[in-house]
Amino acid sequence: MSRGDAGLFLSEDNVALATDLYELTMAAGYVRARRNEPASFELFVRSLPPLRSYLVVAGLEQAVHYLQCIRFTDDSVRFLRSLPVFRDVSDGFFEYLRKFRFRGDLDAMAEGTVAFAGEPLLRVTAPLIEAQIVETYLLTTINYQTLVATKAARIAAAARGRAVVDFGSRRAHGPQAGLLAARAAYVGGCIGTSNVLGGRLLGIPVFGTQAHSWVMAFDDEQEAFRAYLDAFPEHTTLLLDSYDTLAAARKAAALGPRVAGVRLDSGDLAALSRRVRRILDKARMQKTRILASGDLNEHLIAGLVRRRAPIDAFGVGTELVTSKDAPALGGVYKLVEQQVGGDWVPRLKQSEEKETYPGRKQVYRLLDERGHCRGDVIALEGEAPYGEPLLAPVMRRGRLVGPLPSLAQARSRAAEALARLPGRFRRLHAPAHYPVRWSRRIQALREETLRTLETGR
Amino acid sequence: MSRGDAGLFLSEDNVALATDLYELTMAAGYVRARRNEPASFELFVRSLPPLRSYLVVAGLEQAVHYLQCIRFTDDSVRFLRSLPVFRDVSDGFFEYLRKFRFRGDLDAMAEGTVAFAGEPLLRVTAPLIEAQIVETYLLTTINYQTLVATKAARIAAAARGRAVVDFGSRRAHGPQAGLLAARAAYVGGCIGTSNVLGGRLLGIPVFGTQAHSWVMAFDDEQEAFRAYLDAFPEHTTLLLDSYDTLAAARKAAALGPRVAGVRLDSGDLAALSRRVRRILDKARMQKTRILASGDLNEHLIAGLVRRRAPIDAFGVGTELVTSKDAPALGGVYKLVEQQVGGDWVPRLKQSEEKETYPGRKQVYRLLDERGHCRGDVIALEGEAPYGEPLLAPVMRRGRLVGPLPSLAQARSRAAEALARLPGRFRRLHAPAHYPVRWSRRIQALREETLRTLETGR
Repeated sequence: MSRGDAGLFLSEDNVALATDLYELTMAAGYVRARRNEPASFELFVRSLPPLRSYLVVAGLEQAVHYLQCIRFTDDSVRFLRSLPVFRDVSDGFFEYLRKFRFRGDLDAMAEGTVAFAGEPLLRVTAPLIEAQIVETYLLTTINYQTLVATKAARIAAAARGRAVVDFGSRRAHGPQAGLLAARAAYVGGCIGTSNVLGGRLLGIPVFGTQAHSWVMAFDDEQEAFRAYLDAFPEHTTLLLDSYDTLAAARKAAALGPRVAGVRLDSGDLAALSRRVRRILDKARMQKTRILASGDLNEHLIAGLVRRRAPIDAFGVGTELVTSKDAPALGGVYKLVEQQVGGDWVPRLKQSEEKETYPGRKQVYRLLDERGHCRGDVIALEGEAPYGEPLLAPVMRRGRLVGPLPSLAQARSRAAEALARLPGRFRRLHAPAHYPVRWSRRIQALREETLRTLETGR
Repeated sequence: MSRGDAGLFLSEDNVALATDLYELTMAAGYVRARRNEPASFELFVRSLPPLRSYLVVAGLEQAVHYLQCIRFTDDSVRFLRSLPVFRDVSDGFFEYLRKFRFRGDLDAMAEGTVAFAGEPLLRVTAPLIEAQIVETYLLTTINYQTLVATKAARIAAAARGRAVVDFGSRRAHGPQAGLLAARAAYVGGCIGTSNVLGGRLLGIPVFGTQAHSWVMAFDDEQEAFRAYLDAFPEHTTLLLDSYDTLAAARKAAALGPRVAGVRLDSGDLAALSRRVRRILDKARMQKTRILASGDLNEHLIAGLVRRRAPIDAFGVGTELVTSKDAPALGGVYKLVEQQVGGDWVPRLKQSEEKETYPGRKQVYRLLDERGHCRGDVIALEGEAPYGEPLLAPVMRRGRLVGPLPSLAQARSRAAEALARLPGRFRRLHAPAHYPVRWSRRIQALREETLRTLETGR
């Protein structure tokens, strides 16, 4: 174990082990059973989390990076050999792992695409073992970023044009989650993040104000405010609620229009923002912005907007980065088609309430004459197109077919896709159910596959 | 940006930027204001999440690793200089960052300690800037692992001695969160994880069964089962619900006692486990264990145990790694004392519902004659002891005072601490409120500090 390991950081050297054990035991079983013909797996979300009516897809860039860099180092192979479960496994498997590279195909919805339940967000087609081994990592990557991008879209919608900034790193599920959340929140509509590494690695605009500790570290609040303004003459946002918000607002007002902003972090934000606005305006500080924070979510923000609270920007933390009301996205990754003796055979899972549709699929979006979404059709790949196809080739034989869109492009795509979605599907409460139908051919294939299974047993 | 950056991995080179921007702007402000006398910050949880009556502390090892390795690389400093907010900041600050090392003191509760609302879980004493800069990372590290260790303890308690395994990587908030969850779940009472990297880096026992795709990849379920058993003659757990659970159980029974286990993943687990148990027993497979999985949590597991479902082990995923019913822990990190001109001055935050207690603290646990916990006292450091002190020195001047306990020791500590906690404080529903009181001296200091603040303004 190297020194860095105590931090529990992922790296290109250990990322292949960031997976469920059964992916690797199944791989060993397939090697032994000499089953490695091509197979297609699709990643989709069976049903959306409560209140969600759409998803904003995110995380593809990290998924692609993983597929490009996954390999089993000597150290990893040695570790696996040491596990009791692999004791009876022959050398052939470990040789296979040593040479393992992902050389399959990836088709996916671009990041920022708006998607719905049942729709494949991505498909991997590769020799069975390759396609299987990458399951866990693809799921965790797409599940989390899509969860946060979707939550961010809801929050940004509630803010109706006011800025929303991700402030959630300290409550994210570990340091990497904070970074992934910053990225996904930006795709979903936040204008930036407090996470500095998000700025460094992704070019996301970074924002910050000051903490209570700054104010507490000075004997006098006014002195604390002045010292900050001295240090950041053009970028000072003063935190008002360390002791008494309105008293602090008057101290901020005494410093004049150079104060770029003030932050409210507790109390009745609607009432306080009005009173603070008046104090600032009296001091001719019309340009000084009011930022609000403190356990905000889309519902609270919608309430503040409805009450016309004079708040210019919202800092959102816990609720955003944990998607607190629905902290998991149930993406699954299912075998849908497989070559057997050179022929492609559709596959499905039949268990109660968890049935799947067989066959490689394409998702088409139907638009009306004004460009608004009318509904989607999930069809078999190769059927005559129904509309705009949403899945596109991303990798062929392990290589990118072209550069991935930039993060800014993903963000624009999300904004455009959401704008095309009629308002009834975007309501925060009781949104209308977006129509997604299965093509006749896919339904027929499903019936046929079920019949074959019945006969087979 | 190096190629690895697209994976958004943390590393010792970039970890210093995994923080909120305001930590660094405040640092720049303190450098400018020449304020860098020693200060103490304490990390505590104001109120426990719903239904929680205790916390199991976890994450200290990663916090210590961070404090040991944090440094600002040339690349990081260049990036910060490029941000508009730092435009007016003098070179002195960037020089300070280049030389930055954490050389402060850390006192903390050992991992596995059972703790309660208001109690400091750790304290940093260092020059003000050092103590401030590390805030965000310490919070995200302790918040998440403590959240999951606590959830794991609840789930393990519900299982009443049956094994609980972490199966949650695919629903964790990114790949690193899956690894952190595996660690914290183990501290909290899980017997292992499906996360292979958790096995490699932490020595946690790893477990796995098989996925539906294995069964679906064969034309015939029986053939799929036999192929797995051939590959893993002593470690085969068969997944029964790909098509029809009871039919699958009969196929498993046909393979005889070499089948180590079967897994139920959907349907009425109590009823199915009984029928499957009967099928296995008839085939003289009394030693074949039944594992249940599928969106389980502490309440569902308690229900299965109450109904005497013959389930030997539980695989728990989403609910565990996202702590789904309460997916965030609101740990905060507050300035409590600070040197001003060489004298230590207590500090507190006074804002509505978010007041803090000033002064460096110690937490004492009071035990009755049978060794059961009676309650805790939060006192000032240096007061005459009330019982067993829970905070101990971990680092002095940036160096470990001794080796940290092993992960196994942290896990034992949690088990022992929970066993000392009377059952009424451990109920899943409506647990009794554990008595934590503030010493008279700390209350007096609080009153005095508040009076000083009133006078000061």
